[in-house]
Amino acid sequence: MTDIDYARYDRIRPIHWTGDTLELLDQRRLPFATEYVTCGDSDAVAAAIQALAVRGAPAIGIAAAWGVVLAARDIEADDAAQAAGRIEPALQRLNAARPTAVNLAWALARMRAAMLRAQAGKGGDWRNALEAEARAIETEDLAANRAMGVLGASLIEEGSGVLTHCNTGSLATAGFGTALGVIRAGVAQGRIDRVFAGETRPWNQGARLTVWELQQDGIDATLIADAAASHLMKGGGVQWVVVGADRICANGDVANKIGTYQLAIAARHHGVRFMVVAPSSTVDMETPSGELIEIEERDPGELLGVGGSRTVAEGVQAWNPVFDITPAALIDAIVTEKGIVERPDTASMQSLFRG
Amino acid sequence: MTDIDYARYDRIRPIHWTGDTLELLDQRRLPFATEYVTCGDSDAVAAAIQALAVRGAPAIGIAAAWGVVLAARDIEADDAAQAAGRIEPALQRLNAARPTAVNLAWALARMRAAMLRAQAGKGGDWRNALEAEARAIETEDLAANRAMGVLGASLIEEGSGVLTHCNTGSLATAGFGTALGVIRAGVAQGRIDRVFAGETRPWNQGARLTVWELQQDGIDATLIADAAASHLMKGGGVQWVVVGADRICANGDVANKIGTYQLAIAARHHGVRFMVVAPSSTVDMETPSGELIEIEERDPGELLGVGGSRTVAEGVQAWNPVFDITPAALIDAIVTEKGIVERPDTASMQSLFRG
Repeated sequence: MTDIDYARYDRIRPIHWTGDTLELLDQRRLPFATEYVTCGDSDAVAAAIQALAVRGAPAIGIAAAWGVVLAARDIEADDAAQAAGRIEPALQRLNAARPTAVNLAWALARMRAAMLRAQAGKGGDWRNALEAEARAIETEDLAANRAMGVLGASLIEEGSGVLTHCNTGSLATAGFGTALGVIRAGVAQGRIDRVFAGETRPWNQGARLTVWELQQDGIDATLIADAAASHLMKGGGVQWVVVGADRICANGDVANKIGTYQLAIAARHHGVRFMVVAPSSTVDMETPSGELIEIEERDPGELLGVGGSRTVAEGVQAWNPVFDITPAALIDAIVTEKGIVERPDTASMQSLFRG
Repeated sequence: MTDIDYARYDRIRPIHWTGDTLELLDQRRLPFATEYVTCGDSDAVAAAIQALAVRGAPAIGIAAAWGVVLAARDIEADDAAQAAGRIEPALQRLNAARPTAVNLAWALARMRAAMLRAQAGKGGDWRNALEAEARAIETEDLAANRAMGVLGASLIEEGSGVLTHCNTGSLATAGFGTALGVIRAGVAQGRIDRVFAGETRPWNQGARLTVWELQQDGIDATLIADAAASHLMKGGGVQWVVVGADRICANGDVANKIGTYQLAIAARHHGVRFMVVAPSSTVDMETPSGELIEIEERDPGELLGVGGSRTVAEGVQAWNPVFDITPAALIDAIVTEKGIVERPDTASMQSLFRG
């Protein structure tokens, strides 16, 4: 297979550090306007995360890391020890912006650790150390995505069609994406001929973001109703379902956007294979299985309209779980930057993630 | 089980014959306005059918039958034979309003047959004969729905939850509904405790019509995203999926709204039972199996927005199949006014429909 032309297949960046400010591609306005929110201090970054201008667990973590860099500029301190105390309130505010996003806490923990190293006299000037760490978090995320892209694509045979769900692309990461990175790599290598994206009700990330993102890279993608996936599979249109993950348990169970589980059942019924793509920071070896994950339920109002138009009568009840759990038994492969776990179970997960 | 209080559980009528005009509940305005389109001649009825003011195969057939009654008023004829020739253009225009709706052609064929009987000197005055036939079509549809309601509900155990798809209710029929009639009967008899309705993208008939309709009858229903059905089933919330049908083949395969097939796969995976409810006029013993049915694909634009709000970028492709085929093997029961076929196959279908 040929190398991937990243200049062509990796054009979107949701996060730009200008050296002075943080520019965040405003995902609330997409796909109709490409506008950036300019953040001049860490509170502006926290507000942008809270308001969903930036979304996707890896992208949130990266934005927060740059928010710490901005906070560092507004602090007067004689040394790293003093700075560590004075910067802590800003880290707390950033962490509180989306308390359930695992990568946010993980990125802030890395920033604190960099501060500690500077305190211990390692890593030079503490402001420079924080900037270097934020850049490392961003760079490593992009590198992990590109590595996962090639690994995941290696499983896909030439001439395949793929179906994805939600948005797991450049917009949700430093760039390239997780599941969408596999699709980009598969298209670039000529393995994938057909890309389908489900709308992903109720937030329509598939309809609003995924097909737009692929369009920017010149990748043809076809939008379908979430409920049309099985009919698509029956017709032979897709050979793989490729999705991301919000959390991966020690036994390989996967928590992801509502609708993922239904796709996994349909895929198994049709002999279509099912791939989960996520950085190893998504793997949670402390949670043995999916039944232990509490599923967040959000405002039923999200189901009562689309894009400002109400579609449902007043007084109607709705049930709006945000995630579901796909059991490991329905998953053919979990792809991380550390490697691939095929037919995941506790033993195979252990061998890669506690090896 | 107690009798059903139809005064409580069957309040909505989409079609009113006033004796002078036909009033059609405008389904394009629901659930936000309860307005009627008044049709004073048969062309107005054809226009209302074409514009989707009235929808649902049985309701379309009934409206068209009343359209023929209106056409009869505008014809000067000495006898039934002359009238039959002069009324034919109006029948053709009605038939062309939705050429794919089977019940439309079926209802018009009944009206023609009534005319022939009047010609043959049976059935009295031809105008009266047409009015009597339209009333019979409407009355028989309501009676069939009530019969199916009780039959279908008899399969449902007390304390059950049910999930339905699209709109198969009073709005789609003379009244009471097909699948929704079973749900009404099951609630009235205390068998059903929980009713869930899927949004039914892209037209949102579940979100716009079904939950509104049940609300009118005081039946609590909970709206879910189509993609949340499997997560609901996994939690034990529903014991039956109850849906309608657009066509039922000789082997029990069912063509119905896109998403039905996916629900049937999910139901089987969870041990949830799957019921199809439709009048026997929906059964097509001339089509041996579902593979022979061509699936209508509609304008991809229907997936690009909701209620006037565009959600998708310009230039994006979409695939919009309207129906899918649920194989008989995934169906636990087909309920018609003639009886129930459990675990349908060619032999069991023959015994009821060619017995």
